Amino acid sequence: MSTPVNRQLLLKTRPEGRVGREHFSLVEAPVPALADGEVLVRVLYLSMDPTNRVWMSDVPQYLPPVAIGEVMRALGIGRVVASRNAGFAEGDLVQGLVGWQDYAVVPADQASQLVKLPAQSGLPLPTLLGACGMSGLTAYYGLTDIAPVQPGETLVVSAAAGSVGSIAGQIGKIHGARVVGIAGGADKCRYLTETLGFDAAVDYKADDFRQQLKAATPDGVHVNFENVGGEVMRAVLSRMVIGGRVALCGVISNYNSGRAADDVGVLISKRLTMRGFLILDYRKSREAVQTLSGWLRDGRLKAEETVADGLENAPDVLNRLFDGDHRGKLVLRVDPDA
Amino acid sequence: MSTPVNRQLLLKTRPEGRVGREHFSLVEAPVPALADGEVLVRVLYLSMDPTNRVWMSDVPQYLPPVAIGEVMRALGIGRVVASRNAGFAEGDLVQGLVGWQDYAVVPADQASQLVKLPAQSGLPLPTLLGACGMSGLTAYYGLTDIAPVQPGETLVVSAAAGSVGSIAGQIGKIHGARVVGIAGGADKCRYLTETLGFDAAVDYKADDFRQQLKAATPDGVHVNFENVGGEVMRAVLSRMVIGGRVALCGVISNYNSGRAADDVGVLISKRLTMRGFLILDYRKSREAVQTLSGWLRDGRLKAEETVADGLENAPDVLNRLFDGDHRGKLVLRVDPDA
Repeated sequence: MSTPVNRQLLLKTRPEGRVGREHFSLVEAPVPALADGEVLVRVLYLSMDPTNRVWMSDVPQYLPPVAIGEVMRALGIGRVVASRNAGFAEGDLVQGLVGWQDYAVVPADQASQLVKLPAQSGLPLPTLLGACGMSGLTAYYGLTDIAPVQPGETLVVSAAAGSVGSIAGQIGKIHGARVVGIAGGADKCRYLTETLGFDAAVDYKADDFRQQLKAATPDGVHVNFENVGGEVMRAVLSRMVIGGRVALCGVISNYNSGRAADDVGVLISKRLTMRGFLILDYRKSREAVQTLSGWLRDGRLKAEETVADGLENAPDVLNRLFDGDHRGKLVLRVDPDA
Repeated sequence: MSTPVNRQLLLKTRPEGRVGREHFSLVEAPVPALADGEVLVRVLYLSMDPTNRVWMSDVPQYLPPVAIGEVMRALGIGRVVASRNAGFAEGDLVQGLVGWQDYAVVPADQASQLVKLPAQSGLPLPTLLGACGMSGLTAYYGLTDIAPVQPGETLVVSAAAGSVGSIAGQIGKIHGARVVGIAGGADKCRYLTETLGFDAAVDYKADDFRQQLKAATPDGVHVNFENVGGEVMRAVLSRMVIGGRVALCGVISNYNSGRAADDVGVLISKRLTMRGFLILDYRKSREAVQTLSGWLRDGRLKAEETVADGLENAPDVLNRLFDGDHRGKLVLRVDPDA
């Protein structure tokens, strides 16, 4: 093959607050020749995740922060276009931490982290990053392993129109729970009840948010699938029954501010159990993907993706996660032909 | 008997921040004649607990806040001096929510909440409120039921020189854990290691608190028995191993400020489980009292109490909990002859 040009977004400075293009350098370089054991991946789609924002900050976290001058870390799907690794062949579809770039040269010692995807899953690639990818798996294990929800219980999901929340709420319905979603604005709330089949939806931007939440949870809340933290979580925890369980998936309200606004005191008064979790710990399991794709095929689960275009737009697209102007999974199409 | 005068401290206004005498009215009234089913209790000792401060605030909590004009609620030990209730006889030693007053008239429908104490326990009354009372039981169930600690694990206890923490740390040692206590000042830290047998003690008031904590927990922290919240908890959580457990007993650092300063994000990155609990839920169990008093008799457990005098001093004495100028259980002797 001819030597393609690789555009890369390198972290230039650490953002305080919102991410902007000024925090990244867009550089172009030829793709280097592969060394033994390396794999060259053409990036097709990037998953835009709140955790990306955390990786930009020099705070304690589950992976090292992205170093200044490094390619911004991100999960994505790509196609192997050259391989000097026996485990991968040209044409393989793979998922992994490919980063904000057109081409990823995956080193020999990291190639084992690439996951080969079935060539013919019958699902669109964005769905493999969304409902049947990290987002869906997170929702699945959060409600089966971390804070299992039982038939007849009330489940409240925050950021319910987002990639994880929209799946979590639907899984709650499949499990027989009464499901209440929290989202921003009337359109999203309608989407939750009319399209996704939630029992009720509550607008956290409304002046009477807490009253709405109370009205929607007359029997209290047994399980909270929490994506937001801060004031939204506080309102939900205030509605929980004694002994309730919280699957703590994210605290997106804290990621941009760098300031924590949580209060764990209510865990005591309500005798709550809050478990933080990362989908990383479940990467070896295949159960969830099979279950989720079965539900998608049966129509029991609806997946929605918002697809944005252009690697160079990655910082702005990432901000949409925090502005809440999208529904379902947000992905960036890097390869216009994908 | 002649009609004694009853001094009562009624909540006059809700404190913001520290408690002062100005928030209470000290009133004197004759003890009324008992109605059918009522019990008259001479208050001997009052337990001074951080939760008392919470009860003064009109915030959501596990019991209703004390109403303005009501006797301040508090746990204590007293002696029955008159009874029109078949369950209690003159001379009975009882424990219950007797309140900040010399005499408690316990209504018929609340008499069942009074717990009769053995006449000859061989233990001082302050110990029955401390190591063998709510404080000790809290420590016991926190480390057996909520976040069991295993031999060889590292346990960190905050407010470790206090009534609950001092017992929790010693229970950790009995269970074979490496125990690190967090307390304020060199004297208390020496007390933890030299008198109570903790493996290490860390001074949260020291400039190098985080470095001290890191040095004292070279293998990380498996279990955190948390009494403080806020910055102290944040430092401990940053040292926890992946999958660690937190028994969340109190967040005393938040009680006076009314402001929450906690950050639950680390629960995600470390996949921690945090369980809030209240000793209320274990009040039917006798196992802990038997075990704790056995350990006290054997000398495996050391109990220390700080006894203050004078009902009228209750607000100032309560503040000592937050100033941290006492060790072990803080009690107020109401009856000078007790």
